[in-house]
Amino acid sequence: MGFISSNRNNEQLLSKIATNDGHGENSSYFEGWKAYDSDPYHSTQNPNGVIQMGLAENELCFDLIQEWVQNNPKASICTAEGANEFKEIAISQDYHGLPEFRQGVAKFMGKVRGDRVTFDPDRIVMSGGATGAHETLAFCLADPGDAFLVPTPYIIQDQVSRFDRDLRWRTGTQIVPVVCESSNNFKLTKEALEAAFQKATEAKIRVKGLLITNPSNPLGTVLDRDTLKTLVRFTNDKNIHLVCDEIYAATVFNQPGFISIAEIIEEELYCNRDLIHIVYSLSKDLGFPGFRVGIVYSYNDQVTSCARKMSSFGLVSTQTQHLIGSLLSDDIFTEKFIAESADRLAKRHEIFIKGLAQVGIGSLKSNAGLFFWMDLRRLLKEPTIEAETALWRLIIHEVKLNVSPGSSFHCSDPGWFRVCFANMDMTTRMSPHSPISSPLVRARN
Amino acid sequence: MGFISSNRNNEQLLSKIATNDGHGENSSYFEGWKAYDSDPYHSTQNPNGVIQMGLAENELCFDLIQEWVQNNPKASICTAEGANEFKEIAISQDYHGLPEFRQGVAKFMGKVRGDRVTFDPDRIVMSGGATGAHETLAFCLADPGDAFLVPTPYIIQDQVSRFDRDLRWRTGTQIVPVVCESSNNFKLTKEALEAAFQKATEAKIRVKGLLITNPSNPLGTVLDRDTLKTLVRFTNDKNIHLVCDEIYAATVFNQPGFISIAEIIEEELYCNRDLIHIVYSLSKDLGFPGFRVGIVYSYNDQVTSCARKMSSFGLVSTQTQHLIGSLLSDDIFTEKFIAESADRLAKRHEIFIKGLAQVGIGSLKSNAGLFFWMDLRRLLKEPTIEAETALWRLIIHEVKLNVSPGSSFHCSDPGWFRVCFANMDMTTRMSPHSPISSPLVRARN
Repeated sequence: MGFISSNRNNEQLLSKIATNDGHGENSSYFEGWKAYDSDPYHSTQNPNGVIQMGLAENELCFDLIQEWVQNNPKASICTAEGANEFKEIAISQDYHGLPEFRQGVAKFMGKVRGDRVTFDPDRIVMSGGATGAHETLAFCLADPGDAFLVPTPYIIQDQVSRFDRDLRWRTGTQIVPVVCESSNNFKLTKEALEAAFQKATEAKIRVKGLLITNPSNPLGTVLDRDTLKTLVRFTNDKNIHLVCDEIYAATVFNQPGFISIAEIIEEELYCNRDLIHIVYSLSKDLGFPGFRVGIVYSYNDQVTSCARKMSSFGLVSTQTQHLIGSLLSDDIFTEKFIAESADRLAKRHEIFIKGLAQVGIGSLKSNAGLFFWMDLRRLLKEPTIEAETALWRLIIHEVKLNVSPGSSFHCSDPGWFRVCFANMDMTTRMSPHSPISSPLVRARN
Repeated sequence: MGFISSNRNNEQLLSKIATNDGHGENSSYFEGWKAYDSDPYHSTQNPNGVIQMGLAENELCFDLIQEWVQNNPKASICTAEGANEFKEIAISQDYHGLPEFRQGVAKFMGKVRGDRVTFDPDRIVMSGGATGAHETLAFCLADPGDAFLVPTPYIIQDQVSRFDRDLRWRTGTQIVPVVCESSNNFKLTKEALEAAFQKATEAKIRVKGLLITNPSNPLGTVLDRDTLKTLVRFTNDKNIHLVCDEIYAATVFNQPGFISIAEIIEEELYCNRDLIHIVYSLSKDLGFPGFRVGIVYSYNDQVTSCARKMSSFGLVSTQTQHLIGSLLSDDIFTEKFIAESADRLAKRHEIFIKGLAQVGIGSLKSNAGLFFWMDLRRLLKEPTIEAETALWRLIIHEVKLNVSPGSSFHCSDPGWFRVCFANMDMTTRMSPHSPISSPLVRARN
């Protein structure tokens, strides 16, 4: 579907954004996608195809959602029960969003955090997915050339490097990595933060914020209370923003439980809330990436106001707002969903971790997310990115598993791979082509 | 709902975009909205309230749409008939969009243009409404500081100046007005284009394109074949882009019929198609602004490819794509809808024009759109913007009609007002508070 330009003059006809390579689609990560796309696994039609384990999708609880949808036809404007609202919903274009949508999302955000904090529906700002939310915040907080500190390894998105695109591409902002290492389980330390800040300052780059993912993508871990307090104090001291991507908040399936930045700022005596911003989405926690529900939740009034104006470029369809508003206002449903989803994720995670352990393959201890961080360092011929890439190609083309190499997450230590486990049904796992053990045994040979 | 910042330091904490006034929400146009919001007309509960005639919404054919939706439950993933597709649709996030959506939209775009041209589904690129489509094109075609020529009077959008925001705010591009005047019925001439281009060049501003709305918002007129050919030749000669906003294509309700730029480039022997781009949307032609369906249709492969990558920031909800794909693939429905919609718009338009004519108020002859361009020049105390604003305030606060003054469309001649006529039901029109005649008679007194 990609068009190749026939016009050599495009470079001067088009913008720098259109003619540079800032989008990141040419990353090595994309190669795995192509391998999968050209030979996708199917239990009967293509049992020797590539199994997709590079996609952080959550398919485990659609039965609960579909049951709710069928039992609540009024939530849709396309049913006999809900159709009388069709016109009113279809013509509504207020960038504040439908009140029931904002209330439902705010309530759900509280529920996911154990109702230990509440969220103000008036601060719920829509954006086109978390993708749009991150770009919106970058536009609000930073000028071209300004930078955000981002701990490694950091998030990629399906098909394209996520922060590389969301933050940098159109906003002109930069990313300064905060290097976290295997040696202390990728813990985010004050020393690493200070070192990154110092390095940026020396390079005369203005740092405007720190961006974290909690739970972490790709690690599948959560930040503890002490670390979160360190982050608040560090960013407050430097007078820079703290952007917390909490889009995996409801995927925490084991102890320790999730602690939101929203809780920390309630506990801290001194905290400038104007510097605190949360990115949320329903793509992971509910498994609705197609619905494009991204949320900017800022404690800064001016950012909330500006982000809302920007949401005109990425509003959520009112048809979807209406459905989501009803779904998330149903406490009985959301409580059941959150509990059941965690339970299913825990079971699925355990099957994979145990299966790998049986063949001597370990992973970083994790309790959240739709993936784990697999340690194949011992399988590398040498501790280099080249060796990691060679192993990754072997896994894709010979073992026929599309997992994601650490290098595509800017990981400093070669040999780690992100493995997604919630985007396939159990028949895939149980096939002779099982990803649990045999293929990786093959990889070791 | 607007937050007032408590932090005086925000100016240095936030970006220039967040702290400047580029969004345009503080325009005088917004004042009319506030007046309406604080005292909205209701036939029984507030018969003396402000009647909203500033909103270019199309409410005339929802009965046809609702009938189709009820007869086609499989088009929705929330009905018993369609629910088995819920999961597949909800998790789909390919930025190419659902194939049935692209095919449906391409087919509808052809139907709206009398099937005289066809559109390639592979060139259908999604964006968050026309708002997102215009910003996407600006990001693709121009660097900060570059300019687009835009004929006056030019479009505003509900609540905020449209092109002022869409083109300029986050992209940093500029608008150079091409001045069109009452004296020749606002015709867009080659001389006016050359003068604007010349002026920009003298100011050392690089012009990257010409942006037109056809049918015109706010004039409600269509461009004739000769003018369209002039525009293609002018932009080709200058080697600049021609962006055609055709979001009102299906609202042409009288002769002369609509001619799309897609037809003109088929007819022109020499035309660099890499310079031609169409913006489309379903907000006006179908009346679905809430669904946020915006389309970039570029004949330039590289722009198509780049715009598609950018669509990640403003994808249409797959729930909505699925519904729209089914709806617009139904030829029997679309043909009936297009004919019936034009018929109803023609009748509504005639009622208003005749009613105003009876009290001696004229308007620019028009045959398209959801509005007409009312001539109140004779009611001005003097031919100035100040006098126009004074009259407008009288109309809003005394006559209780929210119409839009020409100055908010950057019209060069004071005394013109845009009147929207398709966003209210007939009970409003027939009330004692009728906008047809008595209020404007009052305004004359």
